[in-house]
Amino acid sequence: MSKPIESTSQKDSMVFEKLNVTRESAVLFAVIDAPPMNLEGPELIRDLVSLIQQAEADDTVQVIVFKSADPDYFISHVDVTRIKENREAAAKLDGNPSIGQVLRHMSASRLVTIAQIEGRVRGVGSEFILACDMRFAALESAIFGQFEPAFGVIPGAGAAQHLTRLMGRGRALEVLLSADDYDAEIAERYGWINRALPAAELSDFVRSLALRIGSFPAAGHAVVKNRVNAIALASAEDIQRDSDLFLEGVVTPEYQRRMQAAMKRGFQTREAEMNLGRLVAEL
Amino acid sequence: MSKPIESTSQKDSMVFEKLNVTRESAVLFAVIDAPPMNLEGPELIRDLVSLIQQAEADDTVQVIVFKSADPDYFISHVDVTRIKENREAAAKLDGNPSIGQVLRHMSASRLVTIAQIEGRVRGVGSEFILACDMRFAALESAIFGQFEPAFGVIPGAGAAQHLTRLMGRGRALEVLLSADDYDAEIAERYGWINRALPAAELSDFVRSLALRIGSFPAAGHAVVKNRVNAIALASAEDIQRDSDLFLEGVVTPEYQRRMQAAMKRGFQTREAEMNLGRLVAEL
Amino acid sequence: MSKPIESTSQKDSMVFEKLNVTRESAVLFAVIDAPPMNLEGPELIRDLVSLIQQAEADDTVQVIVFKSADPDYFISHVDVTRIKENREAAAKLDGNPSIGQVLRHMSASRLVTIAQIEGRVRGVGSEFILACDMRFAALESAIFGQFEPAFGVIPGAGAAQHLTRLMGRGRALEVLLSADDYDAEIAERYGWINRALPAAELSDFVRSLALRIGSFPAAGHAVVKNRVNAIALASAEDIQRDSDLFLEGVVTPEYQRRMQAAMKRGFQTREAEMNLGRLVAEL
Repeated sequence: MSKPIESTSQKDSMVFEKLNVTRESAVLFAVIDAPPMNLEGPELIRDLVSLIQQAEADDTVQVIVFKSADPDYFISHVDVTRIKENREAAAKLDGNPSIGQVLRHMSASRLVTIAQIEGRVRGVGSEFILACDMRFAALESAIFGQFEPAFGVIPGAGAAQHLTRLMGRGRALEVLLSADDYDAEIAERYGWINRALPAAELSDFVRSLALRIGSFPAAGHAVVKNRVNAIALASAEDIQRDSDLFLEGVVTPEYQRRMQAAMKRGFQTREAEMNLGRLVAEL
Repeated sequence: MSKPIESTSQKDSMVFEKLNVTRESAVLFAVIDAPPMNLEGPELIRDLVSLIQQAEADDTVQVIVFKSADPDYFISHVDVTRIKENREAAAKLDGNPSIGQVLRHMSASRLVTIAQIEGRVRGVGSEFILACDMRFAALESAIFGQFEPAFGVIPGAGAAQHLTRLMGRGRALEVLLSADDYDAEIAERYGWINRALPAAELSDFVRSLALRIGSFPAAGHAVVKNRVNAIALASAEDIQRDSDLFLEGVVTPEYQRRMQAAMKRGFQTREAEMNLGRLVAEL
Repeated sequence: MSKPIESTSQKDSMVFEKLNVTRESAVLFAVIDAPPMNLEGPELIRDLVSLIQQAEADDTVQVIVFKSADPDYFISHVDVTRIKENREAAAKLDGNPSIGQVLRHMSASRLVTIAQIEGRVRGVGSEFILACDMRFAALESAIFGQFEPAFGVIPGAGAAQHLTRLMGRGRALEVLLSADDYDAEIAERYGWINRALPAAELSDFVRSLALRIGSFPAAGHAVVKNRVNAIALASAEDIQRDSDLFLEGVVTPEYQRRMQAAMKRGFQTREAEMNLGRLVAEL
């Protein structure tokens, strides 16, 4: 089934620091590999921006599947110690330093994006998969959370926009205000993801779906995405407003105090974040 | 875990006729206790208005949990024999006599509200829980219904607004046009409630969630609610329009005839309303 | 329970070529019977237009239940060889030749419509049931698909509008971009239908629901539908836009090539379309 990979020039340009990208037919498989816990820092953001730009420039690419090299963490969350660098990296795509706008660019792109989720996706990790066009998760291992309200702030990259439209007011408020961890079964029931599948079946399911979609005409992808997005994708203004509110929140003393307490308890370390839902309730 | 209750002045002011209110940390637990069947009459409306006002005035209160003292009825529905008094009681909150506007005030409030549902919630009872921020119900006993269309009228306090946004056009039309009773399992499947839980686990689940949310910064609650409501809460104009259409409907001969027939069959009595879904189909 | 059928004049006018219509109380049961596979061609469209017109003109009719005479096909899809005639037949309702506008007329009507689905509903068949007010399907036999994007085009009669609102962005994109078949269990989980029921219970369930709704005042149906539609029914402009985009797509060489290949493999034949999801991936 697999075509020869891209030409040498393309191949050369497809070198990333935190992503391992392979190609099969019209599908790119991008494996997030940013040890020790797939934090979203400037290197990963730079890679994602670069991948989107290169894939959009290549008419033979139609679908990107995102996976993780770490079975416990898909994307843990943004690296809170490097916000300034993150924003500089994000601005490379469209000039806007908000990660939410990078994600919205991806949602609005002609490229079809599929998240294959094993392990934890929290904070901007959850917002990343929400910005993908589809989400499939391992029943046994995937864990979802938007912990930001535990620090008194709204998620900064679109979670409230996506979750409210996907699961309705009541469930979105529960998920956001509880700032807790949710397993894949509830995530499916609530509409956070398309489906939870047994881990053993997940890769084959997603690969088949991606290759199938990639075999259909690109014109169909673009028109379908445009029409669906016109109904269900938040406006750039709404994404910006959430981003601004997040930035207003992180400079408050209350946020600062809680974040310092969280860092002392191991926030941003692999071990402590295995149960982040509990950690944020103990600050 | 529990803090000392409020100051004496607060305590004095927290006396209600149809609500038993206790406090634990930042959470108020309000038990609806309006025998014989928790009809929503002027006393209960007065109490709810008063509770909302006092809680909003007290910065140390962040969450209200609503429960019922009656295992068979959470809120049965509005007392149809006292519409005028009900409206006078409702007007005490913001000057608007529509119960739907009282409920919308609660939805838009910085206060986080959680409904813990055992027994029947129908008519304005269902609209009350829909206006809460989250809804959890006892799998064994909770029953949901919007019976108003069986009398030829639209629900008057926002049900069509909430249900359509929560469950989509097809399920909302089914629920409203059938005017029937729905159990907790289907209510969860349709999105009427967040989740159905075994009755034995319900209280602990809701209490933990409420205390958890109450321990997080108030700033986060307010910003999250504002942004989610901007997407998913019906406008005051839409709430008003439904209220007006309801009032236009209840004066028609068809409504009057059916309501009289219903009263003869025991409408607004505890026993007859155990199976109200059947009763309204026999008028 | 059953009332005498309509008057002779009504009866005479209720003769159809591809529909068998019977009446019980305020409910019409319309059985789609267009062998060999319930393709939606000009005769069936003419019948549907005529049925809607006659039912709307008869105040004693409140509900229409749609079923199929073919256990394998409810409506297979539009007859792609007769697009011009189809559009002429559609224009008979409101002057607009778009089938999507005929379906929107039905959604906006005071009539309550219920789809009782056994067998395949694909393309405009799926769009037909989506335009009904409620959808109940046989767990064992119902199969759902919007295969149009496999040919590079958006569905032309409102599928993207309905699916996005019913199931959210992620699931709508999956269903549309995969162009695949979905069974009744997933269709229920995704919100494509109200509920999947065992085939043995389906007819009784739908008949009871239809008669129940038909026994309630017509005024309630109209006001509930108006208010729900104001939130959740796509505008005529959006339906038109999708229709126009579809028509732009079907004249492209890519569409033409794929459609010719599909016809060679048996597209529009009963046997080959038993597994249409596979067929469209082999073009």
